[in-house]
Amino acid sequence: MDRIPSELAKELIDTAEALADAAGKAILPFFRQRGLTAENKDAGTGFDPVTAADRAAEQAMRAVLADRRPGDAILGEEYGTQTGTTGLTWVLDPIDGTRAFLAGTPTWGVLISVRDNTGPVYGIIAQPYTQERFRGGLSRADFTGPHDAGPLAVRGTQAIDQAILFTTFPEVGTPEDRAGFERVAARARLVRYGMDCYAYALLAAGQIDLVIEAGLQAYDIQAPIAVIEAAGGIVTNWEGGPVHDGGRALAAATPELHAAALDLLRTAG
Amino acid sequence: MDRIPSELAKELIDTAEALADAAGKAILPFFRQRGLTAENKDAGTGFDPVTAADRAAEQAMRAVLADRRPGDAILGEEYGTQTGTTGLTWVLDPIDGTRAFLAGTPTWGVLISVRDNTGPVYGIIAQPYTQERFRGGLSRADFTGPHDAGPLAVRGTQAIDQAILFTTFPEVGTPEDRAGFERVAARARLVRYGMDCYAYALLAAGQIDLVIEAGLQAYDIQAPIAVIEAAGGIVTNWEGGPVHDGGRALAAATPELHAAALDLLRTAG
Repeated sequence: MDRIPSELAKELIDTAEALADAAGKAILPFFRQRGLTAENKDAGTGFDPVTAADRAAEQAMRAVLADRRPGDAILGEEYGTQTGTTGLTWVLDPIDGTRAFLAGTPTWGVLISVRDNTGPVYGIIAQPYTQERFRGGLSRADFTGPHDAGPLAVRGTQAIDQAILFTTFPEVGTPEDRAGFERVAARARLVRYGMDCYAYALLAAGQIDLVIEAGLQAYDIQAPIAVIEAAGGIVTNWEGGPVHDGGRALAAATPELHAAALDLLRTAG
Repeated sequence: MDRIPSELAKELIDTAEALADAAGKAILPFFRQRGLTAENKDAGTGFDPVTAADRAAEQAMRAVLADRRPGDAILGEEYGTQTGTTGLTWVLDPIDGTRAFLAGTPTWGVLISVRDNTGPVYGIIAQPYTQERFRGGLSRADFTGPHDAGPLAVRGTQAIDQAILFTTFPEVGTPEDRAGFERVAARARLVRYGMDCYAYALLAAGQIDLVIEAGLQAYDIQAPIAVIEAAGGIVTNWEGGPVHDGGRALAAATPELHAAALDLLRTAG
């Protein structure tokens, strides 16, 4: 992370915090309200609700960036790409986990990251309802929560039969993707479903060991990459290469676990 | 609920609140700690971790009852049955959702209820980490959370294709049970997995519409019954009868939705 000078690093960290504040303030009035309207972006082929909260939060975050970092580019889930002049791009997903949001569970999150031409340099996974933030990059890896705060670090699990695995399957991916996931799931100690970005935060916090996803967009995975890598974990695609532009992701606490899961994902089904 | 005099009702409500306080205080120091030990109560047949937190919380709750309500009976998940003389029994599940607890997700809960010989009269579903409590019975139906508080009431969804369904499947139940669940799931608007008691709280709060479970113990379902019924919902077994002693549960926001789901659960697979 020495490619970012320390003064700029502080500015980016402060800006990310301001973005998380703005998003939380915009979203919470909508969370668990009666009569929440949801649209279906992808009518007929799947369930992908977009709430008024999603848009309000992205607008609020874009306003923060217009004020604090007007030269940076923006890639947002709701309002697309805005070009910039600094070589830095903010990647924003105001509500990752719209199904969770719609059902009232506090396991959706606000994903905020900033990248340069090599990939994400800093990210936050924020959960406004539970008042949690998980941060990583720019020499930082820490969390704050409703009861405590402290460093983030992955744990040392090396064997799949000792691993807790999270995923959004069965709701994402092709049948072939699912078969790959099932090969890992069959050997894991425990599998949990449908936690979206909250799973990445738990991996960075040393609570779980593996996350396997498919069908991701860049804005779904860039903040998790920054947070997990800063906490000592590994995030790649299912071929072991970079995944910051989206696709199929494998996040692991240790190199041993990553290699073992990658082998199973690659095996012909 | 007029079978309970108002002075006694107040005492039971206050006692339940003290039990939730005691359980939360006992549990939180263990939540998300590194090196959490878990035993397997049912080695070889399934994954049913019991944590030190589970036991500490039940002991703390039994101490509260010994002080405040020494004549009441107790049925607890960890330490079994203690007989009483008042006709009232406290039914306690210190951590419902031990898998969620072990994985660090804030979707487990403390289940506290008090019953007479006809069934539960009052219950609390408490989530200490998020600082939420969902209460029902004795003319009360309300919640408190980290950002707000207010009444609990189910919403008016009548058709399955408009319903959000929660379950702990695929981890519970027989293959036949699962087939019944899948018949409802195939028609639901949205299905979410693995939320344990938190799902019942969301149903009472008007956020979701159906919960379908199997393999329940009495202590898993009595508090949810009290809370959901107080919020205007319906909880029965898969035959439409009482489920407060456990088994297969169907919780629904409206009579129409309950009848429609019951029909699908009963259909030969």
